[in-house]
Amino acid sequence: MNIDMIRAAAKRLEGHARRTPVLTSPFLDQIAGRRVLVKAECLQHTGSFKFRGGWSAVSALTDNALKTGVIAFSSGNHAQGVALAAKEHDAPAVIVMPSDAPVVKIEYTKALGAQVILYDRATEDRDAIGAGLAEERGLTLIKPFDEPQVIAGQGTCGLEIAQDIQALGVTQADVAVCCGGGGLTSGIALALAADAPGLRVRPVEPEGFDDVTRSLRSGKIERNDRTSGSLCDAIITPQPGNLTFPIMRDHCGPGIVVTEDECLRAVALAFDRLRVVIEPGGAAALAAALFYPDLFEGDAVIAVATGGNVDPSVFTKALETLS
Amino acid sequence: MNIDMIRAAAKRLEGHARRTPVLTSPFLDQIAGRRVLVKAECLQHTGSFKFRGGWSAVSALTDNALKTGVIAFSSGNHAQGVALAAKEHDAPAVIVMPSDAPVVKIEYTKALGAQVILYDRATEDRDAIGAGLAEERGLTLIKPFDEPQVIAGQGTCGLEIAQDIQALGVTQADVAVCCGGGGLTSGIALALAADAPGLRVRPVEPEGFDDVTRSLRSGKIERNDRTSGSLCDAIITPQPGNLTFPIMRDHCGPGIVVTEDECLRAVALAFDRLRVVIEPGGAAALAAALFYPDLFEGDAVIAVATGGNVDPSVFTKALETLS
Repeated sequence: MNIDMIRAAAKRLEGHARRTPVLTSPFLDQIAGRRVLVKAECLQHTGSFKFRGGWSAVSALTDNALKTGVIAFSSGNHAQGVALAAKEHDAPAVIVMPSDAPVVKIEYTKALGAQVILYDRATEDRDAIGAGLAEERGLTLIKPFDEPQVIAGQGTCGLEIAQDIQALGVTQADVAVCCGGGGLTSGIALALAADAPGLRVRPVEPEGFDDVTRSLRSGKIERNDRTSGSLCDAIITPQPGNLTFPIMRDHCGPGIVVTEDECLRAVALAFDRLRVVIEPGGAAALAAALFYPDLFEGDAVIAVATGGNVDPSVFTKALETLS
Repeated sequence: MNIDMIRAAAKRLEGHARRTPVLTSPFLDQIAGRRVLVKAECLQHTGSFKFRGGWSAVSALTDNALKTGVIAFSSGNHAQGVALAAKEHDAPAVIVMPSDAPVVKIEYTKALGAQVILYDRATEDRDAIGAGLAEERGLTLIKPFDEPQVIAGQGTCGLEIAQDIQALGVTQADVAVCCGGGGLTSGIALALAADAPGLRVRPVEPEGFDDVTRSLRSGKIERNDRTSGSLCDAIITPQPGNLTFPIMRDHCGPGIVVTEDECLRAVALAFDRLRVVIEPGGAAALAAALFYPDLFEGDAVIAVATGGNVDPSVFTKALETLS
């Protein structure tokens, strides 16, 4: 993995991925006690940053590999990112999804033309299922985070942040990133190390699923006890990746852990103050920026709002925190 | 009113107003049967296009007028747009609001630094109160739509649309605009007549408040019977303005009328497919694009999502239309 791969991915994504806006509100600044700059990846195609990695990986395949098709296993956002990227490349896509993924994510993945195969997160091993199907049909497996072209694609978000903050006059700041397996976190960290060395990435995780935070602290890969049962489904993974962890260890500041309730409050504040829809897992970084100001340094904090694919019932629950 | 005033306003707004993104979804295209391009003014500062007109009007004032301050009547989006523009110009702002306005809206306007003066809708005359205050303190009144610098500011949205559609390869299309007094509609119409003559503006109004649609049909200014009692409160006005109506008559296609329920469904689809928060009145144009495809011409339709300041309870009601 290196910055050249991210720059090459950025070229392939040009005209396909959306350049997402940076949103602000004086009200959020007031809560955090510093400027809060929200990189709204929830406005990316398919509603999350995952489209970047999906497009990057699919667009790097040979014509033959595209013709045979791709496979991915995902709780939802990676699924849609790969499905749309495959569809726009006229490549067949098989997506293996946990049966407890939000209904909208399953439905939309199907609507994007992918074949969806469901599995039980608690009792079945998605890696084994994915690998088996890949071998059987000759499909190219596109892993959700521990895959160089996927990390390169997510890193393009970091290239944009480096440009965004220059325009906003920010040179020193922490960048809070909602962190699952670390594909986005490590990609952004690599991009910023090259293009904005005054920015430091801070992985943010939900309570009970803080594998990256603990791994960064111990210096070796740590696992979560559970891998389901969180409203922050988008960023729940068993452990950091073998590729992503060393990058995060070398480039990131300490991890930050937030509660589910804080994520819901951040979802509600984003509704109220930024007029964007963020899913709970995608609001972890904003929650950290708003509710743990003492853990950050600098006059500004960048929070990456990683996705917006949320069931109406969960969103309604989040809005109840406003009253 | 002419295009030069809009271009001059665009210069004054540069670096202050947000350049709002154009959002798309293959799912919305499918519903409408053509490409749907949503200009997301709900992501503008203060959550609506009104910041453009507020900034344009305030920034056109002399230093002396700024020092003395501005006054506006509004319980909604214009209040916040003027309040923030005045605050950033270090100009005092007085906003006259009805005492039964939602507490949060009063609080938000105060939080933006404005002095809020409440009046009793039943027993007091807001025009008399405003005129008295304006005269007594020498404040400059910033009208919500029938004011050249306000129209010029709203027109900057049209300049952006002309650039946006060029990048998207669209040359002929209808532009649906949620229409109250016609400040935004006429501003966009003037901008497009100059910069994108293949685009035609279509004012969109809620049922029961279709003064512009009827005025365009009869060729003279028509009034609404009611001026309250709609979820689309942001775009409810007694009649089109003396300045805005002739511009709309000369440049716009026929008006389109949508129901409140259709606006709520459009709010829900924007949540689900675009991940933005739109208020019911701000979703009227999208509702027209999605649910009245036969009233439009061309392969694409641009819908301006004019604002996103919506109470959680109303938003929750809109989300119920998804199930």
